[in-house]
This record gives sequence, C-alpha cells and structure tokens, in this order.
Amino acid sequence: MDTSGHTVGVVDASGKSRTLSYDRLLIATGSEPVVPKISGVQLPGVFFLHTMDDSFAIDRYLRETASRTAAIIGSGYIGLEMADALCLRGLDVSLIGRSRSPLPTVDPHFGDVVEEELQRHGVRVLNATEVTRIEQSGSDLLVNGGDLSVTAGLVIVAPGVRPSSALASGAGIRVGAASAIAVDRSMRTSAPDVFAAGDCAETWHRVLERNVYLPLGTTAHKQGRVAGENMVGGSRSFQGCVGTQVVKVFELAVARTGLRDDEARRAGFDPVTVESAASDHKAYYPGACELRIRVAGDRLSGRLLGAQIIGHWRSQVAKRIDVFAAALFHGMQVDGLNDLDLSYTPPLGSPWDPVQFAAQAWGHHARSTTPPPI
Amino acid sequence: MDTSGHTVGVVDASGKSRTLSYDRLLIATGSEPVVPKISGVQLPGVFFLHTMDDSFAIDRYLRETASRTAAIIGSGYIGLEMADALCLRGLDVSLIGRSRSPLPTVDPHFGDVVEEELQRHGVRVLNATEVTRIEQSGSDLLVNGGDLSVTAGLVIVAPGVRPSSALASGAGIRVGAASAIAVDRSMRTSAPDVFAAGDCAETWHRVLERNVYLPLGTTAHKQGRVAGENMVGGSRSFQGCVGTQVVKVFELAVARTGLRDDEARRAGFDPVTVESAASDHKAYYPGACELRIRVAGDRLSGRLLGAQIIGHWRSQVAKRIDVFAAALFHGMQVDGLNDLDLSYTPPLGSPWDPVQFAAQAWGHHARSTTPPPI
Repeated sequence: MDTSGHTVGVVDASGKSRTLSYDRLLIATGSEPVVPKISGVQLPGVFFLHTMDDSFAIDRYLRETASRTAAIIGSGYIGLEMADALCLRGLDVSLIGRSRSPLPTVDPHFGDVVEEELQRHGVRVLNATEVTRIEQSGSDLLVNGGDLSVTAGLVIVAPGVRPSSALASGAGIRVGAASAIAVDRSMRTSAPDVFAAGDCAETWHRVLERNVYLPLGTTAHKQGRVAGENMVGGSRSFQGCVGTQVVKVFELAVARTGLRDDEARRAGFDPVTVESAASDHKAYYPGACELRIRVAGDRLSGRLLGAQIIGHWRSQVAKRIDVFAAALFHGMQVDGLNDLDLSYTPPLGSPWDPVQFAAQAWGHHARSTTPPPI
Repeated sequence: MDTSGHTVGVVDASGKSRTLSYDRLLIATGSEPVVPKISGVQLPGVFFLHTMDDSFAIDRYLRETASRTAAIIGSGYIGLEMADALCLRGLDVSLIGRSRSPLPTVDPHFGDVVEEELQRHGVRVLNATEVTRIEQSGSDLLVNGGDLSVTAGLVIVAPGVRPSSALASGAGIRVGAASAIAVDRSMRTSAPDVFAAGDCAETWHRVLERNVYLPLGTTAHKQGRVAGENMVGGSRSFQGCVGTQVVKVFELAVARTGLRDDEARRAGFDPVTVESAASDHKAYYPGACELRIRVAGDRLSGRLLGAQIIGHWRSQVAKRIDVFAAALFHGMQVDGLNDLDLSYTPPLGSPWDPVQFAAQAWGHHARSTTPPPI
C-alpha cells in the first residue's frame, strides 16, 4: 500500500544499501551518553552505562580484573544506582559529582539526606568536583580534577544523555529543546508522515505547557503508543509528562514530580515550597518511619506545582509521588489534595495520608505568609 | 456571642443537668456496633471491638485467662485484623462469617485469596455460617449455629456498625441512609445551625452522586474539617468519598475504591470488570511479586467505575489504589489512566505501572467484547 511515494535509505549489517518505501515513518533513535570533556575516557576500565551490553561488559571486566575499587563520575540517577550496586558487590566506591550535593534533580535538602545514606553504606562522596583527566597508573586508573585524585580499578562515567537526533536533523527535520526532534502532541515531526517518539524527541510538559527535553522510560512508552496509534489512522494526543521520577538508593527512595521552586519561578509562577514530615503509617503500628515531603505551590493561586518525597524505600514513596502526579495532571490546588479519598489502614497510612498532611502544612504556611489582597 | 437563642441540654458525669447555649452545634456521636441476634453475647469472654477500652479489656482478659483459642464472628475488616493479631499472639483462631468468602467488600475472587492467606497462617475459616447461640461450656465458650459448634476461650463479635443517631432523630433531625443523620455537602443537618460529621452522618458518594452510609475514619476527618470550617463562617463543600478502603491481612494487602459490578449495575451503569496480573516491579530486580488488579468500567462510555487490588502488603497496594481513587475523583476514563505520568524505577515499578497495565487489560477486553454502535 505504498501510496505516499516516501522512501528511506537503510544500510544492513553487511554494509549493503537498500531503499525502503513507507507511508508513515517512526524515528525512535533514542539517546546517547553525553561525552564529557575528560581526557582518558577511552582508556580500558572506563565505562559508560547506556546499553545492556555496557552492563555486561562492566560485569565481565569486574570478574576478570577482580577490581576492588570503583570511581563513579556523575551523581544523578545512574551514578547513584551504580554506587548502590557496586557497594553491594563489595567494592569501595567513590562518587564524584559536580553539584553541591548528590542527585541535583531534587532540592539540596534532600540531596544531603542522600549523601548521608551513601556515606552510611561506605560510599565516599565528592561534591562540587569537576573531573578533567583519567590516566593509567599501573593496573589502576587515576581520576583527576581540581584537588582531586582518586585511584580506582573501575571507572563509570554517568554524565547524562542527549537525543540521538542527527539522522533526523540531517534529513532536514526540525529539532527543538536540547536538539531533540521537534514534535507536536500527535508525535508528528516537521516532515510529512514522519513521527518521532522516546529519548530522541521532545516531550510536552503539562505544567509548563511547552516542549522540554526529559528523556524517561515512562514517557517513551506513552509517546510510542500515541505515535503508533496515529500512524495507523488514530487521533490520540500525548497528554504530557509532569516530570515524575523516582530512584532507590540503598534503603532510601527519593521521588519528585512537577516543578521545583527555581523551575517554577522561571516559568512565571510565584512558588512557595514547604517541607513537612510525617510517619508513613500510624506510629503505634510497628515499623513506622518518617517521610519528608516538600510541596511547591503557587503563592496566590494556590495551585499545586510540584512535590518531592524522601523516605524508606518500603514506605510507598513511589506511589505517594504518583498521587501528587495525578493531582498535577488535573491541575489541582494544593488544598484540593485534602479532598482526595485516599486509602487508610494503620499498617499502611493515616486517616490523613502524609501526602495530605504535606498539603495542609503548605496551606498553613501559605496562609501565614501571604499578605491579604489589598 | 449568643445571638441565636439555641440551647442544648447536657447531663454531666455526676448526673447533673445543665443547659448550654450555642450559635452552631456539631453532632459527632459516631457509630455503635450492631448487636447481632445471637443469644449469649453478654457472657463473660465475649467482646465487641469498637473502642480503645474494648481492646484493653480483651488484652486484659487474654492475660488473666491465658486463653489459647479464639472464635471471631464476622469476616470483615475488624474480624480479619483480629484474626491476624490473635494468631500473631499465638492463639488458635476460628473465623466465622456469613458470606461465601471472607471480606465480602471485595469480589469473591479476592475473598478466596484472603481465605488462602488466613489458612496458610493456621486460621480456621468458616464461611456461609450464621451464628445463633453462644453458651458457657466449663471455662470455655461454645459458639453454635447451623452445623457449627466451635469451642473457644475468647469470642470476638465484629458485626459492623450503625450510626449513633438516636440523639439527633429524637430531636426531630432528619435521618437518611441506614438511619444516619441526613446532611448536605456543607455538613448541615435539617435543623438550623446544627451540623453533623463522621460515623453518625451520611456520606456524599462522588461516583454514585448521592448520600450513602459508609463510616470510615478518612471520611470522618474530611467531614469534620468541612463542618468545622463552615461552623465558623466558611463555605467549604465536602467533595465526597469514592469508597476507598484497604486492609492488611498477614502478608497481604487488599484494597478497593469506587464501585463493584453489582453496585455499579444498581446505580444504572453497564459495568465490565476485567482482572489482570502484573509484577509490582521489574521482575529482573529481586523481590518482585504479583499484584492482581480488577478494574470496573462502564462498557460504552469507558468511564472508570472502580478498582480492587490484592498483593503483598509491601508492594504499594494501598497507594496504588490511591491512583485509581484520584482518577475516580476526577471522573476519568479507564483509558485515561494510561496518560498519567506515574513514577518508575526498576525496584519499585514498571514503565507502565501495574495500574496502567490493568487499564490496558480492561481496554483490550472492552474493545473485544463491545459490539460497535449501530
């Protein structure tokens, strides 16, 4: 059913070129690691972690060299998960990040808690440090930068990703945020009958009401579904992400959704963030532990802008952030969270869930600090 | 500031009567156990479980008599929690219920799973059994009904509650569903300046769009807040419950929100319920376990009507039902759940959360069984 006259050139594994015709084309080229300006990143024993093959290669290297020390460059999600995994494997781990505390995608208050958790498990945390050079030193590697010099048998470079959009831009397709392929909410690109989805493409942000680059697996799945449906004649619209993310670091889970203060301010909101603490369930039932929740809301309108939660990974942190995410999706007021009929049983919650307790804390603060309208 | 001329008579602990004046009055008399038609419920060793004092009395009785066996009449939330607690304390427990499987507030499919969990922990489960008589038998009690005869040192009667609305109805205040005090969404009763909230009052059901009797702690807190705010001049409206409930039974959590098929049908919907199963998190990360989710939706409109989840109590069952609860609150379509930006990390979820996987399973089934419109 080639009625469009569109063609695409492909090269197969043997190097043979062919031309394929298509009615609709999907570009799903994903992302690739940002290659940081560090000399020596090509040395044996230095690994990026992007594909399954990368992880198999690291595993093989560790078994073959019996390395006992690791340095991780980058303290975002991948860096933290690798610190956790390599510690569990018995290695001495140094985690080197540029930000003033690990996990710069949450507020430094929470980054400090993550740092304590890392240190509690023996990870050496080096903040505000720019690595410039990796060099061989006998059978080890030497990671250098500023005053830093760390010796390690294994080096993981986890610098974040950028969209693999060269194929698209080379074909004259428009790119946008962070050079990701520009798409509308039907996942159509600027080229007729060409769609894009996943880490190579822009993402509609439902709170910011504009496209951003935020490559996440959850979003990729949704975009793929929307693109696929539209490519066979459907008319589905991507409803957007609200920036929901969670990571487990040792015993902690750290989650966020929506905007943080600085992001909200740049978007023209007048954000107030209020932190509160509450037991994950009724304290009289054994095993209760503290959740810390930071809620961001717009001072005058009272609109919910975002939330961050940190607590024990068994305390439903991930699905509690999802309650905030659902509220954000619907543009709720912070106070509106108190109207949600959330579940309660003493071993698993409170009659006011911590999510609602945090909303109330935000309300008290906002009311006590906002001058009445003149 | 007595400007209303309203008065209320009170009797204090010493028996002395007084008259108090008020501008606004709140009736928060709560609920009381239904006293079942069982002869012998007044015998020593037979306990209702309604107040803190009841639980202290049971604890004292167990310590004084060193009873090793317990019979629980009623297999709802209280009955199940007591079976769990008394088992943990080392007693041999028989759980006697009238329904065909325990926990009749969820579908029998899930009740059967609860029954297996109870049996796995040594609880003797007796379904479809009506207890008619309790009698003394030496130092023990004999619980009789139909073919049943269970000997136990301790008997717990957990028959459910009814509203304590006699004070209100005696004062000519209108009662409604299940004889609960009739209220509007500002929590005002039929009497001027008299409010009611909590287990003594009706509850606005947001999906049914009418008042029901559904006494839950979560609802009581919300209603109290609404009543209190309005009693001091505010204008808050109770946004309603959607019927969200959760209970932990040994290693299981069982949760529900919204309507079940039979309830939805009675309310004029054309419900379809589809059950699916999914890992609570990525199976390659250790510790994954299965969640079973039943989603009810309206066949033609696709509107979400309710959900039930059963799984390990550590697998975020409670807060996953809250995602459904938030969706119900906003009147979402089942398919709309797929648009929610829910959190994901391999130890705690999947790129499509089980909640969304269940929504997709519902969609596939509904599409494959619904005839196209003529």
